[in-house]
Amino acid sequence: MSEFDLIKRYFTKKPSSKIELGVGDDCALFALPEGERLAVSTDLLIAGTHFFDDTDPMDLGHKSLAVNLSDLAAMGARPIGCTLAVALPYVDEAWIAAFAQGFFDLASVHQCDLIGGDTTKGPLSVCVTVFGTVPSDQALRRDKAQIGDDIWISNAVGEARAGLEWLRHNVQLLHPEEAVSRLQRPTPRVELGLALRGLAHAAIDVSDGLLGDLGHILECSQVGATLRLEDIPVSPLLMELPQEQQQQFILSGGDDYELCFTVPKEHREAIETIGQSLSLSLSCIGTIENEGLQLLRNGQSISFSGHSFDHFL
Amino acid sequence: MSEFDLIKRYFTKKPSSKIELGVGDDCALFALPEGERLAVSTDLLIAGTHFFDDTDPMDLGHKSLAVNLSDLAAMGARPIGCTLAVALPYVDEAWIAAFAQGFFDLASVHQCDLIGGDTTKGPLSVCVTVFGTVPSDQALRRDKAQIGDDIWISNAVGEARAGLEWLRHNVQLLHPEEAVSRLQRPTPRVELGLALRGLAHAAIDVSDGLLGDLGHILECSQVGATLRLEDIPVSPLLMELPQEQQQQFILSGGDDYELCFTVPKEHREAIETIGQSLSLSLSCIGTIENEGLQLLRNGQSISFSGHSFDHFL
Repeated sequence: MSEFDLIKRYFTKKPSSKIELGVGDDCALFALPEGERLAVSTDLLIAGTHFFDDTDPMDLGHKSLAVNLSDLAAMGARPIGCTLAVALPYVDEAWIAAFAQGFFDLASVHQCDLIGGDTTKGPLSVCVTVFGTVPSDQALRRDKAQIGDDIWISNAVGEARAGLEWLRHNVQLLHPEEAVSRLQRPTPRVELGLALRGLAHAAIDVSDGLLGDLGHILECSQVGATLRLEDIPVSPLLMELPQEQQQQFILSGGDDYELCFTVPKEHREAIETIGQSLSLSLSCIGTIENEGLQLLRNGQSISFSGHSFDHFL
Repeated sequence: MSEFDLIKRYFTKKPSSKIELGVGDDCALFALPEGERLAVSTDLLIAGTHFFDDTDPMDLGHKSLAVNLSDLAAMGARPIGCTLAVALPYVDEAWIAAFAQGFFDLASVHQCDLIGGDTTKGPLSVCVTVFGTVPSDQALRRDKAQIGDDIWISNAVGEARAGLEWLRHNVQLLHPEEAVSRLQRPTPRVELGLALRGLAHAAIDVSDGLLGDLGHILECSQVGATLRLEDIPVSPLLMELPQEQQQQFILSGGDDYELCFTVPKEHREAIETIGQSLSLSLSCIGTIENEGLQLLRNGQSISFSGHSFDHFL
C-alpha cells in the first residue's frame, strides 16, 4: 500500500462545513468567525520518549490528539481542526486502522476536523498541530494571573505518573489499569476551558507537573503563589503509596492534562457551579501572591525538592 | 541545558505585530485579515528518510521551513507564521544554533514568524506546520484545472534528484555542489505563488516528481494532460547524464519545490511578464486535455515507466 493510498484510506474524512478545503491539497483552507482569534498549538510524541513502543495504537491515536486539545482547553479556545503527521517504521494496516480510530473518535467528540497531514517512513512518532478559536479578550493566557486570585485545579493530578511508574515496575497499585488509562487516554478539559472564558484570569494544562506548570503562570505573570497542600485532592488511585511518593506524584508528576487556573475570589461560586454542571471536581488549592512559591500543609511551610518533568534532564 | 532553556535561547523571537501571542503560552494567537482564509500545511522530515544524519544543520533548518513555505506558495498564500517541533537525540548546542539560524534566515525573508513549538528527545526529526492567508476566491487549488489550460513549470526540475544520487555515489556530476544545494536548500516559490493569484487555475509544488504531482492536479480536477518533453527545460546540471537518466530525474525526481501550474491560454503573456519580473524562468510545457496523460517528444508519443517518489514503496 502506497503512502497516498494510506492517506486516502485511513486519514481522509469529509470535513464539516466550517472547513473550506480539507485533506488532499497543498494546504487546507478555512475562515475564522468574525472577531475571533486563531489559537494554535503543536506537540510531538516520540516512541520511547513519550510512549512505549508497544502502546495500544488506539490509545496513541487518542492521546496524540488529546494533549493538543488540552492546549486549546488551557487557552479557552474552541477546537476547529488539526493536522497530523505520522512517521511509521513500516506499514501495518491493523495498527494504522486502530490509531486512526482512536484519533477520530476523540476528534468527533470535539468537532475537530482533520484537515491535513503527512505520512512518512521513520522511527514511530506523531506530530499534531491543533487549531481553535477564541474571542481575543477572553483567551486564558499564562501572563494574566493577578495577586489575590484563587488557584484552582480540575479533578486530580499525579494519577498518570502513578500509571507510568506502575508500567515501569517501580510501584504497586491496587487499580493499575485506571492509572494507566489516565496516562494513555487523558481527557482534554475542553468544555471546562470554554466555561472559564470571562471568569479565569490565567490557565495552563498540567503536562509537566503541577508545580512546574503553575511556575510558568507565575513567571509569565510576574507573581508568586501559596499552595495549601491539604486542599489538593489525593486521588484514590494513589492511596496505597507512601505519603512522600504521593506528594511527589501530585506536585511534579506530569501527563494528567488537568487545568490549573487562577480566578478572582468573587467568582468562587461561579466556578463551583461550573464544576457541578460539568460533573468535574474543581478544587481551590491556593492563592496568587506577590512573589515566591510557598507550600503550606495546615499552615506549616513545607520544602519540596522535586522538579517538573523535562525531556532533557 | 533544560528543554525550557533550549526553547528560550534558540527559538523564542519577538514576533511581528501581526501575531498577538507567540511562543511561550499554551497556544499562539493571531487574527486573519478580513475576508481572507487561513491556509495550513504540515511536513515531517525524518533523519534517514528525508535527509542524511550528517546534513548540515543550517541547511536542515532552511529546508524544514522551505518545504512548508512551498506548500503555501502552491496555494497562492502569503506566509504569516509557523510552528516547529524538533526531536533531538541529545543536546548539541552548536547544532541547534546552526539549525535555528538556517530556519530563521529563511523565515525572515518571508516574514513568517515562529509562533510555537515543541522540543523533545528522540531520533532526529523536524515537524513544521505553516500558516498563510489567501483571499478565498484566489486560492490555487489542485481541483480547478480546466481543459485547454497551459501547463507551466518554474525553473527546472530533476536537479535535487541529481544531487541526491550524487550523494549516494550513483551518478557523476560536473557541478555536484550546485545539485546538492538544490536538494538541501530548496527555494520556495512564494512570490510566484502570490503573483499567480487570479491568473492560474490550479497549482502544486513538485515535491514527489513532476509526473506524480501533475497527476494529483489531473486526478483532483478530473482532467487529462499532454506534456511536450522538448519544452521541459533540461538543467545544465543534468547535461552530462545519459538521456534516459535525465528524463527520469526530470519526470519523476522529487524535492525540487518548483511550482507546476495551469493557466488559461489568454494569460500566456502575463505569465511571461511575471517570470521576467521575478527573474525566474517559466516554461509552458503542455496542455490540459480531456483525459489521460500523454507524453510527446516532437509530436511522437513516448512511454515512461518511472513513478513518483513514495516513502513506502
